[in-house]
Amino acid sequence: MTDAIASNVVPLKWEGDRASGTLRMLDQRRLPTEEYWQTLHSAEEVARGIRDMVIRGAPAIGIAAAFGMALGMRAFDGEHTSRALELRRLHDLLASTRPTAVNLFWALERCRQVAERLEDADNAALTDALFDEAERIFQDDRDNNLRLGNFGAALFEGPTRILTHCNTGALATGGYGTALGVIRALHAQGKLTHVWVDETRPYLQGARLTAWECVQEGIDATLITDSMAAHFMKLGQVDAVIVGTDRIARNGDVANKIGTYMLAVLCKHHNIPFYVATPLSTIDLSTASGDDIEIEQRDPAEVSHIGERQMAPEGVGVAHPAFDVTPANLVTAIITEAGVVHPPYTRSLPTLF
Amino acid sequence: MTDAIASNVVPLKWEGDRASGTLRMLDQRRLPTEEYWQTLHSAEEVARGIRDMVIRGAPAIGIAAAFGMALGMRAFDGEHTSRALELRRLHDLLASTRPTAVNLFWALERCRQVAERLEDADNAALTDALFDEAERIFQDDRDNNLRLGNFGAALFEGPTRILTHCNTGALATGGYGTALGVIRALHAQGKLTHVWVDETRPYLQGARLTAWECVQEGIDATLITDSMAAHFMKLGQVDAVIVGTDRIARNGDVANKIGTYMLAVLCKHHNIPFYVATPLSTIDLSTASGDDIEIEQRDPAEVSHIGERQMAPEGVGVAHPAFDVTPANLVTAIITEAGVVHPPYTRSLPTLF
Repeated sequence: MTDAIASNVVPLKWEGDRASGTLRMLDQRRLPTEEYWQTLHSAEEVARGIRDMVIRGAPAIGIAAAFGMALGMRAFDGEHTSRALELRRLHDLLASTRPTAVNLFWALERCRQVAERLEDADNAALTDALFDEAERIFQDDRDNNLRLGNFGAALFEGPTRILTHCNTGALATGGYGTALGVIRALHAQGKLTHVWVDETRPYLQGARLTAWECVQEGIDATLITDSMAAHFMKLGQVDAVIVGTDRIARNGDVANKIGTYMLAVLCKHHNIPFYVATPLSTIDLSTASGDDIEIEQRDPAEVSHIGERQMAPEGVGVAHPAFDVTPANLVTAIITEAGVVHPPYTRSLPTLF
Repeated sequence: MTDAIASNVVPLKWEGDRASGTLRMLDQRRLPTEEYWQTLHSAEEVARGIRDMVIRGAPAIGIAAAFGMALGMRAFDGEHTSRALELRRLHDLLASTRPTAVNLFWALERCRQVAERLEDADNAALTDALFDEAERIFQDDRDNNLRLGNFGAALFEGPTRILTHCNTGALATGGYGTALGVIRALHAQGKLTHVWVDETRPYLQGARLTAWECVQEGIDATLITDSMAAHFMKLGQVDAVIVGTDRIARNGDVANKIGTYMLAVLCKHHNIPFYVATPLSTIDLSTASGDDIEIEQRDPAEVSHIGERQMAPEGVGVAHPAFDVTPANLVTAIITEAGVVHPPYTRSLPTLF
């Protein structure tokens, strides 16, 4: 297997030395028309960056939060006796930014464990250890995505045309991606001939972010509206669909961005494989099935308005389920950093752990 | 069968007497946020209104063009010998506005026949006859839509939740609609409990026009992105899908707004009936199948931009097929002003004529 090469895109980077350096965030709100890097000097600025969605994507948020803890500790010049209180404050500050992001709490928990281990060390040593931990979380995410990408790419033998949905790329992760990581790996291995990018209404993550990442990588991609996917499948121009996921239940049911279930049904009708790429951390063996996954209902204005512009009349109802659930029987395989599993998932998913 | 009542929405109306009155057009480009009625005094202004898409929808365009001919003749004060030339000029002026609209040529042909019949009449009499013809085209379209609506509504027995796509309503026709005409008839008969309105990317005819018509009629409607249709079908909240069509081939294949084929596949998977509502004039027995229907490729900027706002990066490919073709085997029935037909369409469609 050819090793996947790294990505040209990162969501954030450290600049300078640890004593005076800063965290830089690529402002995803300004993409794709502007590449603007914000500079963050403190835990407060990192928290604001996460809250204001300068970056999004659960893994990317987790990494940023860990750097936020390190920056917060760097600024601390109080007595050792008040340090635990300050660590608690920093934790709460960062944890309150996006209350539903699982990776955020997981990353902050890793930082908490570091602080616990180094309870007797001086502030400088703890700061250094927190920077080490943030870099490790960053690097681990990239390594896992690269492994996942290679496992996914090995599913394809020849020239392949992939359709994907939403943004599951470098911008959402440590710099490689899950579903888009598989696409990157296919590209690196010379197996990728084309990518169809669903624009992904209402938030347009496909048009704004995935299309932009494809351009950065020199990947030949075509943007389509979500309603065009069926048309190009019928024309025989889609060999496989690969999507990410927000949560996988024990039976293999997949919660993901609204529109994913539509693609899975269309794949079945057209006899096209439907793959889900996910880090192990997103597989939730404690959830029995998709029926137990609550669907977040988001602001209707994200559907009825585009930017400031009102597209729908006053007085009409507007629905905005942010996710849908694809039943396991429509999922050809699940791709992880520990390997690829097939149905029945109730049996195969636990073998990954 | 309860008669469907008329609609609260018209795309255009005549105001004043024939000697000095004007044609008014509801400016669909400003909907749904503004109801602005343009005033048109001449054939030239009507032509500009059609070309600039103040109104759209093939039947509405045909009606407007007929009024344009009458307005043009009203302004003519030349000798009888030059009248044929002026009629030719008016015809070409109006015909050149939207070169692919079948109803436009059909309406202008009806006007031409009137002029031929009244070749020896004076200008005032011909003007009057052209106004008569325009009003007849207007009224016939409404009558046909009402009949179609009643035939469609008769397919449903009890409380019904309908999903529709694009705008096939009063705004696109003489004031009632095809697929939305069936929905209006169901509403009038007290059988309609809910309408799901696909926003219909990229042009958002569902969000901007169909949702607006539903609000005008007091129809309980919910706007969704096209990618949500599958989700609500899976939840059991859609009893039938009804769409319009731009062309039906002899074998029953249906060309319609991009996204229609997706809905047909989703209906099959969820065991939901998929209906197509169409005037007879759209059934083209000279086209053998959908393979013979060319798909119009429209400006990619309509996908990559929303209004002036760029949503996709430079350098990415963008596809914009305006229509797709739904194979006849996914179409439960076709609803027309002459009745409802079922498969096999090769046998049933000709019985309508």
